Amino acid sequence: MTESKTMSKKIGYLGPRGTFSEEIALSFYRGVEGCFTPYHSISSVIMAVDSGEVQEGIVPVENSVEGSVNVTLDTLAHEANLYIVKEMVKPIRHNIIVKPGTKHINIICSHAQALAQCRHYLDEHYPAAERIEVESTAAAAYKVASGAKNHAAICSTRSAEVYGLDVIETDIQDNPNNATRFLVLSKQPVSPKGVSSKTSIVCQINGEKAGALYNILGEFAKRNVNLTKIESRPSKGGFGLYVFFFDIEGSLEDEPVAAAVHAVKEQSLWFKNLGSYPINTVE
Amino acid sequence: MTESKTMSKKIGYLGPRGTFSEEIALSFYRGVEGCFTPYHSISSVIMAVDSGEVQEGIVPVENSVEGSVNVTLDTLAHEANLYIVKEMVKPIRHNIIVKPGTKHINIICSHAQALAQCRHYLDEHYPAAERIEVESTAAAAYKVASGAKNHAAICSTRSAEVYGLDVIETDIQDNPNNATRFLVLSKQPVSPKGVSSKTSIVCQINGEKAGALYNILGEFAKRNVNLTKIESRPSKGGFGLYVFFFDIEGSLEDEPVAAAVHAVKEQSLWFKNLGSYPINTVE
Repeated sequence: MTESKTMSKKIGYLGPRGTFSEEIALSFYRGVEGCFTPYHSISSVIMAVDSGEVQEGIVPVENSVEGSVNVTLDTLAHEANLYIVKEMVKPIRHNIIVKPGTKHINIICSHAQALAQCRHYLDEHYPAAERIEVESTAAAAYKVASGAKNHAAICSTRSAEVYGLDVIETDIQDNPNNATRFLVLSKQPVSPKGVSSKTSIVCQINGEKAGALYNILGEFAKRNVNLTKIESRPSKGGFGLYVFFFDIEGSLEDEPVAAAVHAVKEQSLWFKNLGSYPINTVE
Repeated sequence: MTESKTMSKKIGYLGPRGTFSEEIALSFYRGVEGCFTPYHSISSVIMAVDSGEVQEGIVPVENSVEGSVNVTLDTLAHEANLYIVKEMVKPIRHNIIVKPGTKHINIICSHAQALAQCRHYLDEHYPAAERIEVESTAAAAYKVASGAKNHAAICSTRSAEVYGLDVIETDIQDNPNNATRFLVLSKQPVSPKGVSSKTSIVCQINGEKAGALYNILGEFAKRNVNLTKIESRPSKGGFGLYVFFFDIEGSLEDEPVAAAVHAVKEQSLWFKNLGSYPINTVE
């Protein structure tokens, strides 16, 4: 409504307040005049960038223990036309959070990936508690803050602060190497120059043709172009038909990377460039 | 307690009554004198076979839309030492099920994969309903049968029958090609002879070495051995370290398959044979 507001960048993230995505958003855009908008699901963040409702969106794409966030990959492949402009890796620490005064825990709620990342801990310490999936770790904290006393949430200590809850156990994640990689998405690609960079593509190769994936990998190998990740996802067309996501070391402005990607595109039934962007290691 | 009981085969499946896994178990073991035992989670089915508590277990491994069932792959790779002795593919039909007389739906509960497989339908028809994840589609039906009237479950029509519930909408899955592949697991491998078969292996390759995956795929390609699936999962050791699951056409009793698998094993940091077993197409 006010003219001056339209000057600042609009950024979408997986809300509500207190999510890891919000933490990432605040740290990435530190010092930037931004308007931060929470969305209720990962796909709605991505589609808000696609529709121009926000200029950039931040979504989780991969966890070091649980693997890829499928909805992020599937939405980028099949529903949105966006570029990755930045990645950020954030160590994940999960905690058991309750309303002050809680003595007994019957129900534990969190995001599906957080529940999965603490599966062994929960099997051992809370075998009888029902596990309820909600949209985000912060939504779990909100649920506990507004709900019954026998509920607990698995979430960040930041969520506990935001919602005035007690942290009763810390670092309950099954694996100490637990970290999540986030992507910043935009309709405009960036050209990373003078920094270590990565390029992401997604394509459907001819599954009928024996050795089709081998030939695709050959395009990278013969140019000494390294892959940091290969992920297959169902093409949604039936069993045995997959799309492949490749994360490639280097930028499309590097000649060998551009040549390999061009050759892959030529051999694909369907292809999408998800952009070149600076590499990030654990913060 | 009775001696005669110990003569029949003990089979574990993802319970409670009315799950797709139970349907699969009953159809696979039709006519077999079996003792069917429901377990509350996929990992507990697998570990019951591993400990000898049951002789065989049936678990879902892959959905044609949502992709792999991560807990099945991770448990087979890292926690159990079992062989796949059979696969079965089952078309999946999801439905909205309520307690008779329900007028309004606030909460929709189901297994995480079922909720994901109906995501677009739910976004469109029940945008305000809270989605709650429970251990199985049948557990969702049980919850609705024993709970408040504003709850709905996404589950099979069989679950509706088992729990005396009303089916108010049928075939709500987003994708008409929705099917799930199940595995039968045992401590004893089978030797499929005279039938089309498949071999599954899992290995960790040297992620530091450029082109390591390319070389692995070359072992199959140069022997004209086809792969029906490649899946990467985090090795749990940190970002960029993956284990790869390969489904291979043919049995380890076929010389080219055995030679390729032997070569892959030689190049792997870690390797596990998950067995050769008959191929199944949609029932």
